[in-house]
Amino acid sequence: MTLFDVSPRTRDLHGRLTAFMDEHIYPNEAEFHRQVNEGNRWAHVQLIDDLKPKARAEGLWNLFLPPASDPQGEFGPGLSNLEYAPLCEVMGRVWWAPEIFNCNAPDTGNMEVLARYGTPEQQAQWLRPLLEGEIRSAFSMTEPDVASSDATNIQSSIVRDGDEYVINGAKWWTSGAGDPRCRISIFMGKTDPLAERHLQQSMILVPMDTPGVTTERMLTVFGYDDAPHGHAQMGFEDVRVPASNMLLGEGRGFEIAQGRLGPGRIHHCMRLIGQAERALDLMVERASQRVAFGKPLAAHQHVREAIAQSRMEIDQARLLTMQAAHMMDTVGNKAARGQIAAIKVVAPNVALRVIDRAIQVFGGAGVSQDTPLAMMYAQARTLRLADGPDIVHTETVAKEELRRQGVSLRRP
Amino acid sequence: MTLFDVSPRTRDLHGRLTAFMDEHIYPNEAEFHRQVNEGNRWAHVQLIDDLKPKARAEGLWNLFLPPASDPQGEFGPGLSNLEYAPLCEVMGRVWWAPEIFNCNAPDTGNMEVLARYGTPEQQAQWLRPLLEGEIRSAFSMTEPDVASSDATNIQSSIVRDGDEYVINGAKWWTSGAGDPRCRISIFMGKTDPLAERHLQQSMILVPMDTPGVTTERMLTVFGYDDAPHGHAQMGFEDVRVPASNMLLGEGRGFEIAQGRLGPGRIHHCMRLIGQAERALDLMVERASQRVAFGKPLAAHQHVREAIAQSRMEIDQARLLTMQAAHMMDTVGNKAARGQIAAIKVVAPNVALRVIDRAIQVFGGAGVSQDTPLAMMYAQARTLRLADGPDIVHTETVAKEELRRQGVSLRRP
Amino acid sequence: MTLFDVSPRTRDLHGRLTAFMDEHIYPNEAEFHRQVNEGNRWAHVQLIDDLKPKARAEGLWNLFLPPASDPQGEFGPGLSNLEYAPLCEVMGRVWWAPEIFNCNAPDTGNMEVLARYGTPEQQAQWLRPLLEGEIRSAFSMTEPDVASSDATNIQSSIVRDGDEYVINGAKWWTSGAGDPRCRISIFMGKTDPLAERHLQQSMILVPMDTPGVTTERMLTVFGYDDAPHGHAQMGFEDVRVPASNMLLGEGRGFEIAQGRLGPGRIHHCMRLIGQAERALDLMVERASQRVAFGKPLAAHQHVREAIAQSRMEIDQARLLTMQAAHMMDTVGNKAARGQIAAIKVVAPNVALRVIDRAIQVFGGAGVSQDTPLAMMYAQARTLRLADGPDIVHTETVAKEELRRQGVSLRRP
Amino acid sequence: MTLFDVSPRTRDLHGRLTAFMDEHIYPNEAEFHRQVNEGNRWAHVQLIDDLKPKARAEGLWNLFLPPASDPQGEFGPGLSNLEYAPLCEVMGRVWWAPEIFNCNAPDTGNMEVLARYGTPEQQAQWLRPLLEGEIRSAFSMTEPDVASSDATNIQSSIVRDGDEYVINGAKWWTSGAGDPRCRISIFMGKTDPLAERHLQQSMILVPMDTPGVTTERMLTVFGYDDAPHGHAQMGFEDVRVPASNMLLGEGRGFEIAQGRLGPGRIHHCMRLIGQAERALDLMVERASQRVAFGKPLAAHQHVREAIAQSRMEIDQARLLTMQAAHMMDTVGNKAARGQIAAIKVVAPNVALRVIDRAIQVFGGAGVSQDTPLAMMYAQARTLRLADGPDIVHTETVAKEELRRQGVSLRRP
Repeated sequence: MTLFDVSPRTRDLHGRLTAFMDEHIYPNEAEFHRQVNEGNRWAHVQLIDDLKPKARAEGLWNLFLPPASDPQGEFGPGLSNLEYAPLCEVMGRVWWAPEIFNCNAPDTGNMEVLARYGTPEQQAQWLRPLLEGEIRSAFSMTEPDVASSDATNIQSSIVRDGDEYVINGAKWWTSGAGDPRCRISIFMGKTDPLAERHLQQSMILVPMDTPGVTTERMLTVFGYDDAPHGHAQMGFEDVRVPASNMLLGEGRGFEIAQGRLGPGRIHHCMRLIGQAERALDLMVERASQRVAFGKPLAAHQHVREAIAQSRMEIDQARLLTMQAAHMMDTVGNKAARGQIAAIKVVAPNVALRVIDRAIQVFGGAGVSQDTPLAMMYAQARTLRLADGPDIVHTETVAKEELRRQGVSLRRP
Repeated sequence: MTLFDVSPRTRDLHGRLTAFMDEHIYPNEAEFHRQVNEGNRWAHVQLIDDLKPKARAEGLWNLFLPPASDPQGEFGPGLSNLEYAPLCEVMGRVWWAPEIFNCNAPDTGNMEVLARYGTPEQQAQWLRPLLEGEIRSAFSMTEPDVASSDATNIQSSIVRDGDEYVINGAKWWTSGAGDPRCRISIFMGKTDPLAERHLQQSMILVPMDTPGVTTERMLTVFGYDDAPHGHAQMGFEDVRVPASNMLLGEGRGFEIAQGRLGPGRIHHCMRLIGQAERALDLMVERASQRVAFGKPLAAHQHVREAIAQSRMEIDQARLLTMQAAHMMDTVGNKAARGQIAAIKVVAPNVALRVIDRAIQVFGGAGVSQDTPLAMMYAQARTLRLADGPDIVHTETVAKEELRRQGVSLRRP
Repeated sequence: MTLFDVSPRTRDLHGRLTAFMDEHIYPNEAEFHRQVNEGNRWAHVQLIDDLKPKARAEGLWNLFLPPASDPQGEFGPGLSNLEYAPLCEVMGRVWWAPEIFNCNAPDTGNMEVLARYGTPEQQAQWLRPLLEGEIRSAFSMTEPDVASSDATNIQSSIVRDGDEYVINGAKWWTSGAGDPRCRISIFMGKTDPLAERHLQQSMILVPMDTPGVTTERMLTVFGYDDAPHGHAQMGFEDVRVPASNMLLGEGRGFEIAQGRLGPGRIHHCMRLIGQAERALDLMVERASQRVAFGKPLAAHQHVREAIAQSRMEIDQARLLTMQAAHMMDTVGNKAARGQIAAIKVVAPNVALRVIDRAIQVFGGAGVSQDTPLAMMYAQARTLRLADGPDIVHTETVAKEELRRQGVSLRRP
Repeated sequence: MTLFDVSPRTRDLHGRLTAFMDEHIYPNEAEFHRQVNEGNRWAHVQLIDDLKPKARAEGLWNLFLPPASDPQGEFGPGLSNLEYAPLCEVMGRVWWAPEIFNCNAPDTGNMEVLARYGTPEQQAQWLRPLLEGEIRSAFSMTEPDVASSDATNIQSSIVRDGDEYVINGAKWWTSGAGDPRCRISIFMGKTDPLAERHLQQSMILVPMDTPGVTTERMLTVFGYDDAPHGHAQMGFEDVRVPASNMLLGEGRGFEIAQGRLGPGRIHHCMRLIGQAERALDLMVERASQRVAFGKPLAAHQHVREAIAQSRMEIDQARLLTMQAAHMMDTVGNKAARGQIAAIKVVAPNVALRVIDRAIQVFGGAGVSQDTPLAMMYAQARTLRLADGPDIVHTETVAKEELRRQGVSLRRP
């Protein structure tokens, strides 16, 4: 019962997805971690392979691509952002679940880039296997040595040399690079450091097995390595790729980033709403079962306030996210940039507060491996930084508001 | 461009209303206070009388009554709560503006009670002149000596004596009682203190000029008396009214209160969104014009954060309020009680934060009579108490959430 | 039993002061407002005159002047800032009480300026009657047309003309100017707009009855006029005063302001701690007496949390204030500027949170004239702006911290 | 330059300790993790063994035991809590540093118990080797199946059987149990479930190698295992220890817990202040070096506010902690329970806010292994739960405040 009209198609998919989660995901959470923890943490997880065909058979596959990115409907079912939002939220309730439906980051963002900006050859070579779930991908943008929230800081170079480009640079937070099936990375770097500020950057496709590409180490998030997905620090030393790997054209990296980050951000926010809902579910369950000072936790006013605050914050964050989705569907990603920026600030912070309250209700179990809460917290915390820290998006919201009221300011 | 579909009718009314505010309300704010401050503060304000016919001529009149309360469409245009919300918000931008459109509290709530529960005689005598804007009304529920957030605490008595009821009790925060045209009050008291907890209360119509009804003093809110509207402490001593003044029947006061408070609360919330938007407008205007440390305030990051935070909070609060309105329209006030409770907590707190930030941007002017901000703050602060303090509604949200998850707890 | 050693002298004065408050101040709160509200609000209040000799007879008089400002001990008992702090806090519990002890703002700050920087003639003419409590004074610094938090913005002019200075300008928030016994104002303006940034300003003594000095209107603070003290907007038009009225010398206004504002700020903070303690006392009293949902408010966990949070915040703010006082006593006002800035941010915000919680516990009574809470809130809110808004002091704290760690930045 | 008088002894120790940290601890942070991560994570760390004799040679050893717990001065130098506080804070800046000085949890609390309540035999057998740093210890109180914040919930049993006690139960969060030198645990359980509520519990010494004692698994804290210290879940099945292992006497476990937890809590708080200071240092350093949008982070107002807020919060939390220490020294742990409860709420929350801001300033590095921040966050977060969740201590503060004002309430 929500404000927006949920399409019958979404309603149907939502029902099947929820049933799938109940049947195949929640009951396998411990099993997932068991498989990761035994033997090589960076090997493929059999459980994932077992579940993916099941999800595909149910029609729960590649739901993320909106009509604007796939006008011919050749890559997916063509759900709008607003239709996808409630589905993405449900998938997001378990961190490794989206991959089961081929809807996980960073692959969705990369597929969207390839769908929108890829040549037919690039699509045949990389988009198709990604849509099939046969390979995985990475996105190499953030650099360890500069504040990458300011994209103009990026130092990696992409230099034309005959029929090839030569790539040099250091990247980190290359998420998904730990997966043994990760085959391709979209790499951002400067083709022309002397060009106008927003035309210096380009994006290019770099196969992971190209000579000169090295994974230097895996980063931890709080204490988690998020294996087998993982977050890599990578070196690129004199890496040569065919000139045909360039995306859209030299100097258009910033333009692609703008196009890519909107959908990527909103997907993150939808999943965060799902995480927050899950944390609230767990909180309520614990509050109804655990007894302290002679009565269930839920009989303590303090706990009821935690529950009510969480409900109020989640509902607001969800509505704001759906509003942003609706704007993207109707006026486009660019005109919706203020709304996208707003949810990018709101959703992780709401999720963190809700998860934090759930941890407090659980006590020691909340910070341990016995609940998913601590890992959810760590991931949500990262999303106050990934794709730009809160303050960068807050500035965007302010700028849009000032513009709306006719005030123009150069950023000081 | 919002999530919900705004009906063409609302769009049209919204345009006319906005134009009316621009032409007649904002330019007269100083004039309103001048008229109040000269001579008797509790006299009628001529400006109000001058503007009301203009508003009515524009069709901006009695917009508040939803179809559920007026199924025959005999009292108003029959806008749904969702349709009314954006209009109520605009009216709410100036505290004395709603009366111009005959949409002010507590009259709207009282008219809704009379429309839903009044006999044809009661409607003819009181509802009609209220709908015409000829008289004003009050609502006498809160008592000075008991925590009235717990309605069962109410001590006033309504005792049947032949063809009359005899009323005794003390009430305060009887808003609108200062208006010289206030003619009628809906009074809540106990007809049967021994009945079951929710059947002890009744509501009855008490004309203000009935012997025994006295206005003991006017209360201030922070330092404001809100003249000529005002908030009265009133005495009721052996007040006799005809038995036919009883609303709906003895013992049904609690039921009416439940029915009345939902719409009343959401109207308050819509107006609070309007207040918050106004404060944000003022903040942005000031930030673009005032210079400190060599640059406009808006060039200070601190101020931009205040602006962005306000925008994000307002948008969320508005969506939550519209969601509640939509629920009231589609599943009814009772089923929407969790949503109504949520906005009753969220809206005043958001408004207070936004207004507070605006005050801070304005400096000394913000707390003085030179901006509407301090008075807006005082009124919004009161709405964290009126119709129940935050904690009471927070408890309702928690209870609904626990119920949703199948947990039942008696309030300890 | 506190961290700092309270001197026996302070302990003794504290005992007597507390007894005086119990006997003469709290029981007269209603009487004070009664006297103000009857007849001319801007007339002298008899109660004040009745109580002052009593306080003086008890030795509770002029306790505010630290040894550094009165090295010969000619003006007061010579308490250190640390010794004065607990006394100032107690006086601050009732807003009009400090005047009873001749320890009220802005007179204390003005007396401190005259004691430190006045000539013997200036001291004889103005400091002596102020110390006797015969006259009152004002401080004219803030201007309506510029962001006065940046003192270099000040536009008023002080121009030498023979043996006189000619003063022109508009000032507001000239507190205390409403008092009929206010005879003298310290006025800040520019003697040399072309001098180096911090040498443009001067301070000069302007008798209130000098031709050209006009009180244009009294400002309200959240609806309160704070009569008979009040906050005036004043005009100064070709006001001529003898050249001997200059304080310290031309161009030294900024230097005096620095010296004056430290003590003035810490006194405000001490009083705010007193206000917060008073609000907490009231909250606890109400919580123990008022019943809701079948048990005293204090039996609701939510209320106990409000009480505990308030206690924790007040204790921290008090310790920080005493630490600042100790620093002022031992290393001087200038070296303590980071600490003074910190309490100027912390104390009003803590007081506001505590008072706000108390209001919430009181319900409607909390915002009305039936408790001192709403007025306390209004005054504390103003102190987030007066003497510089939070952000200005926050910047000072940051600057000191960066300096401490060897980082130097020009303010952007 | 602080409010309290730091004794010359503390000043001297503080200087030497700071130098030691600079020389031996900070430069070895990476080395510590290297040694832990190579080979068996639960083996002894050579670095610790190398540094301990150095610290002891400098007189930086066993500084934690206050005179009240060691009246003859036989176990340590006899610093008061107030004297120890600034030292404990410095040690706390690096999580594994306190052990170097034999001042780490839970050993300090356990040593304090043995010093205060142990028999000479118990002291000879366990206290002496602990004071020498030859063995380590654990504290087995919290249980997985009950809300252990309510100590009366504890279910483990200690049953007398001839000259022995037989112990059964499950415990978790037994910190330090991972250390291969951990030899003894203080175990809390019920000797008489039918006794009066606070006389049911006892504490008894259980050597870790007693048959029936098993380490079932190690718990993680936000992904960290805190090896080689660690947090164990342990089983106790028909564990038999000599009757002489009983501490103080049957039924006195609650009394010991009260005595133990005060010092333990304040030590945690002192270390948390140290963690917060460290985070602030790191934040300032990063802010001065990292450039975004054309200027150092510290030139962004948002970052300066983060720095200033952190400074203000840390200073307040430190003063409150020192005040509590001073109370413990002067009126005793029991009378200081309100103050101890207050810092147990304040210190972890302040530390979390400061660390969180530092993480945000660092960006991705902040959540990774490249800074100590994420691990600091995880540990501080746990301290909002360990030794009782915030709400339990908040209740204590409220209870003390109500008592101070003469209000008595039974906990509902």
